[in-house]
Amino acid sequence: MLKMTSDEVVSFLADEFPQIDDLGLRVERLEKGRARVRMPFQNRHLRPGGTISGPSLCALVDVTMYLLILARLGPVALAVTTNLNINFLRRPAPKPVVAEARLLKLGRRLAVGEVAVFSEGEDEMVAHATLTYSIPPTETGEPQTGSTDYRDTAL
Amino acid sequence: MLKMTSDEVVSFLADEFPQIDDLGLRVERLEKGRARVRMPFQNRHLRPGGTISGPSLCALVDVTMYLLILARLGPVALAVTTNLNINFLRRPAPKPVVAEARLLKLGRRLAVGEVAVFSEGEDEMVAHATLTYSIPPTETGEPQTGSTDYRDTAL
Amino acid sequence: MLKMTSDEVVSFLADEFPQIDDLGLRVERLEKGRARVRMPFQNRHLRPGGTISGPSLCALVDVTMYLLILARLGPVALAVTTNLNINFLRRPAPKPVVAEARLLKLGRRLAVGEVAVFSEGEDEMVAHATLTYSIPPTETGEPQTGSTDYRDTAL
Amino acid sequence: MLKMTSDEVVSFLADEFPQIDDLGLRVERLEKGRARVRMPFQNRHLRPGGTISGPSLCALVDVTMYLLILARLGPVALAVTTNLNINFLRRPAPKPVVAEARLLKLGRRLAVGEVAVFSEGEDEMVAHATLTYSIPPTETGEPQTGSTDYRDTAL
Repeated sequence: MLKMTSDEVVSFLADEFPQIDDLGLRVERLEKGRARVRMPFQNRHLRPGGTISGPSLCALVDVTMYLLILARLGPVALAVTTNLNINFLRRPAPKPVVAEARLLKLGRRLAVGEVAVFSEGEDEMVAHATLTYSIPPTETGEPQTGSTDYRDTAL
Repeated sequence: MLKMTSDEVVSFLADEFPQIDDLGLRVERLEKGRARVRMPFQNRHLRPGGTISGPSLCALVDVTMYLLILARLGPVALAVTTNLNINFLRRPAPKPVVAEARLLKLGRRLAVGEVAVFSEGEDEMVAHATLTYSIPPTETGEPQTGSTDYRDTAL
Repeated sequence: MLKMTSDEVVSFLADEFPQIDDLGLRVERLEKGRARVRMPFQNRHLRPGGTISGPSLCALVDVTMYLLILARLGPVALAVTTNLNINFLRRPAPKPVVAEARLLKLGRRLAVGEVAVFSEGEDEMVAHATLTYSIPPTETGEPQTGSTDYRDTAL
Repeated sequence: MLKMTSDEVVSFLADEFPQIDDLGLRVERLEKGRARVRMPFQNRHLRPGGTISGPSLCALVDVTMYLLILARLGPVALAVTTNLNINFLRRPAPKPVVAEARLLKLGRRLAVGEVAVFSEGEDEMVAHATLTYSIPPTETGEPQTGSTDYRDTAL
């Protein structure tokens, strides 16, 4: 079950991460274990050769996975990225890109997911990332995702 | 031996990567196997909690390693990042950060390096990244770094 | 199209990698862009707590992706692993594990794929890896996968 | 400060990880933030072309970092590898290899380190890995490395 709707997540992120506006990100889908976010093509993301820069793709995959975790845990949780591994596979076309994120694990202390990035309307993957987030303990000392909750969850 | 000076690298990058100006990056050191680049503290890099965002650190480590490779191969080479793996270790202080890059390998087809990021004037590492770049073949079909050049080089 | 059948791949690997026998690996599926390999549960792979060791899982994911590339390129190609990134997600049960590999890119110089590992008969992922291989040039100087071949291929 | 001597670590590991004997590993150095472990050259680690297999190097880097964490936290802590990222840089010579590990962070919940692997007596790096370990909470609910301990420690 999600603790926040897509609109709530977007509104929360817009307040907290002004950079998201810079990237023009749009949440296209947000479900229990998956999220899709679209990044428009903008000249300022480019690197030589006219392709989208790696750091712009890093920002896209990080935000996409972050909002998926946020929707699951609710806004009390400020999960922190601890590891990002990204493979740049193909030169993106000069068009929008779409990130498809999937949670691989949502444990009590760590969340791990993968994100595939495509040029809009195309089948071949532009980039693939795996990310790990540390989930802070709550103030009561209780983890935010109990083992019961976790076992009930088919990600 | 470097094929470009620090000034030449900076000038080349400024023309080609307008985003570098956005980040306010400054090359502090550029030697055969090492580079140091400083990123000032700016509000627009922040994420909730007042810390520097992961994607800003991704941009910093990518640029730092890129210019080290560029200085070695010269401006004809547009190396392409193929893999970036970054561990975020500690919350950066609200101050500038400094990236220290080191080449681990400069082969004919791949270059691999590591980058450590510190808050300016502090000892503990804020982030650590390893990056791989694909080096394109030259038009003549000759690799840009011959095996002789490579064996002569103590990185 | 595959250049080797499952049997040919297994026979080639058995000759070249005696360690594969040690692990008791069995190829369960081998298609154009996917492979599945099963590793039996053996006491010698264990680490404290009775779980399968990380290095055994590393060997499993490396072999699974390697044979997928081998089947595509044929036995002339000795692709070399250049990067392995693996996330250990859950403690594997004391039972066989199954690795499901998928090619993300088969370029002329680099191949990239991902491998998901499950305890046999279970849904939750035990480990997830991404791997990169360098594909050597052929003696004629011709890449083993031409751009035509590559574009024709829906992975 | 270390909670275990090199001999105690080796004895603990020999009991718990029979695979270590298989690899013939020898701890050459064990200090607060660094460890060096040597792996002899053995035919059974080889892969085609006569070079040491990737999984053997994975086992080496994992054990080297694990014993460094073990020495710091003491034998009560069974840290678990959560992420391993390794770059294979050069074909190892047919001789022993030496792994040099360095802790980058020892937090209350996560430890991160890097390991460089060299052929014995040579300067060029054969492989470079970064690893993350999850540190389990103690039964009392107290973290095994308090924030005081951590701040006192220059890694």
